Amino acid sequence: MTASPGNEAILLIADSELNADMLYAAGLFVPDPFTFLQVDGRTTIMMSDLEIDRARAQSKVDEVVSLTDYTDRAKKTVNADPGLVDAVVELLREREVKRVSVPNGFPLGYADKLRDRGFAVASKEDPFWDQRPVKTDDEVAAISNASRHTEDALRMAFDILAEAAVKDGLLHGPEGPLTSEYIRKRIHVYLLERDCIAQHTIIAGGVQGCDPHNGGSGPLRAGEPIIFDLFPKSTKTGYFADITRTVAKGPVSDTFRRLYDTVLEGQEIALSQVRAGVDGRDIHGEVERLFESRGYETGAKNGRMQGFFHGTGHGFGLEIHEPPRISKVSQVLVAGHVVTVEPGLYYPDLGGGVRIEDNVVVTESGCVNLTRVEKVFEL
Amino acid sequence: MTASPGNEAILLIADSELNADMLYAAGLFVPDPFTFLQVDGRTTIMMSDLEIDRARAQSKVDEVVSLTDYTDRAKKTVNADPGLVDAVVELLREREVKRVSVPNGFPLGYADKLRDRGFAVASKEDPFWDQRPVKTDDEVAAISNASRHTEDALRMAFDILAEAAVKDGLLHGPEGPLTSEYIRKRIHVYLLERDCIAQHTIIAGGVQGCDPHNGGSGPLRAGEPIIFDLFPKSTKTGYFADITRTVAKGPVSDTFRRLYDTVLEGQEIALSQVRAGVDGRDIHGEVERLFESRGYETGAKNGRMQGFFHGTGHGFGLEIHEPPRISKVSQVLVAGHVVTVEPGLYYPDLGGGVRIEDNVVVTESGCVNLTRVEKVFEL
Repeated sequence: MTASPGNEAILLIADSELNADMLYAAGLFVPDPFTFLQVDGRTTIMMSDLEIDRARAQSKVDEVVSLTDYTDRAKKTVNADPGLVDAVVELLREREVKRVSVPNGFPLGYADKLRDRGFAVASKEDPFWDQRPVKTDDEVAAISNASRHTEDALRMAFDILAEAAVKDGLLHGPEGPLTSEYIRKRIHVYLLERDCIAQHTIIAGGVQGCDPHNGGSGPLRAGEPIIFDLFPKSTKTGYFADITRTVAKGPVSDTFRRLYDTVLEGQEIALSQVRAGVDGRDIHGEVERLFESRGYETGAKNGRMQGFFHGTGHGFGLEIHEPPRISKVSQVLVAGHVVTVEPGLYYPDLGGGVRIEDNVVVTESGCVNLTRVEKVFEL
Repeated sequence: MTASPGNEAILLIADSELNADMLYAAGLFVPDPFTFLQVDGRTTIMMSDLEIDRARAQSKVDEVVSLTDYTDRAKKTVNADPGLVDAVVELLREREVKRVSVPNGFPLGYADKLRDRGFAVASKEDPFWDQRPVKTDDEVAAISNASRHTEDALRMAFDILAEAAVKDGLLHGPEGPLTSEYIRKRIHVYLLERDCIAQHTIIAGGVQGCDPHNGGSGPLRAGEPIIFDLFPKSTKTGYFADITRTVAKGPVSDTFRRLYDTVLEGQEIALSQVRAGVDGRDIHGEVERLFESRGYETGAKNGRMQGFFHGTGHGFGLEIHEPPRISKVSQVLVAGHVVTVEPGLYYPDLGGGVRIEDNVVVTESGCVNLTRVEKVFEL
């Protein structure tokens, strides 16, 4: 490792379809790995011949250079068949960079090759880009756009449930029994037609809804809560939405009605507390206290967690889970954070769970709720 | 770094939704990163409480252990708030592992932490799993299943083109002008309904088809070749299909007809040569020679490549591009390789390109063609 001085720089080698830090830095989708370098605030990407014209037109970096150019240089100085790292070495030397900061997930193989060539490579803990949790107006607009489609998909699904017939307690549509799988596919197709890709959508009725990792399967029943948790990604922008509603094909018991109303009250309290400078832990504590005061206990029962056993919210954007969290862990909210607010209560003994989730932008004076789809329990 | 002896092992830390090496090793989809360890051929995964029951039921490893157990141990020996790496360290110590082999893409942050704790971490070049390029019968069945849906999607799209009206040279369907975007969305929705996710589907007419990275956009025209290249992934199995057909809403010129027939002849020659023990470079050379002998030159013209300037084929499976390649580079085929055979000819001056792509399993005596969809140029 070199100890001599030199420019310290930020280096990423990744595609930007799956790697959100790279998409954030480069501002365009590229399916194959490429190189991003930032030196003294100036940003450069090194692109293959196939992508260079598009990159020059679409990317938000200061400079686009040709991978072929640097590979050709490596051919002269190193070997006849240079790889990506050889071209990166040429670029780093030209820019007089000797030390690079890379993300925690930077590929070890590349890092070790760079170290062998005399560069200092240090990984930085996530979040890699300090500004990424704070969303710009354009980012909020992209999230809102994904939200509109998500809300329309929810309304489409609720219309199906509202019009369903009930036979022996099971919901039936024109094409037969309504299952989680059927509704999920209808929602996924609806979203895809609007350039949003949804995966792992939760449509979990009754006791299934009590396990937050259970996506739901089989016939849907009348009279019990069904949790709809949709978190699609826009294929145009890369930004997610993340909205949950709980509905039931009524009538429902007073037990479920009270459970729903309590979760809604908890969400309203949380929404009223979100503001720049507030600690997420305090918001989460307020919700916990409300649920306890209403008699809804949280803890393990028969080897299974019940009550309110997940966080109140989390940041999201180019990834579905980003900082900050609104949870038991202390984390102060900042203006521009986009977070979910999603308390829930889950009681297998009662036969169901309820979660209600909106998305908000944190402001100096409170928050702006981006989610407009109705909160109606009984359809 | 330790120099003392100890078990050498294979270690992966990744999710198995996006990381194909992890999916190959663990045999089930897990959206969040988890740990895979192989010592003396025995495979172990370490799972969170949320995933452990499903992992025990679905994964193909020898042993599933609890992340919570090893995290609890780390709490006693290391610190009050252990991370994933601390739990991995406990597991490695219990198994007396001091040296691990990891993939090229292993996260640097984890590797450096393990090295700081005294473990030797060495990355292995891709392909990480030596056996992954050779497909089992189950893997071939999964690819074939994705292929059936892909072929049906192609037939659905060709029906739309066959029934299209031609106005001023442009194709019109019942809903208006037929564009690349419209057909692409119809195909993506059709595939999603069959549990296949397609991205970057190429529907490129005329000159657009001459740039293999151009997905195609705008109105489709009569009388010119339209390249359909579909490579969806089954969400049930994780395996891809990869099929290309070139069609035209006829009638077409003799120029295009001859271009199509020559590509088809090239593909038939390549298919006849594929066999275990044959070097892909020789197959690629045969196709190149045929095209040249027919007068189709390859090279740069007006700053743009034309002719046959990509490989004849590539392996695929859990990723869309896997070893081996059938190209200018020497690489010997092995029984069980699943490869594409996809020669093409592209001439902007002629106004279009043609590519035809089938998928085959390499056998000792030749190959089995998995692709059944018709090769009909004029619709």
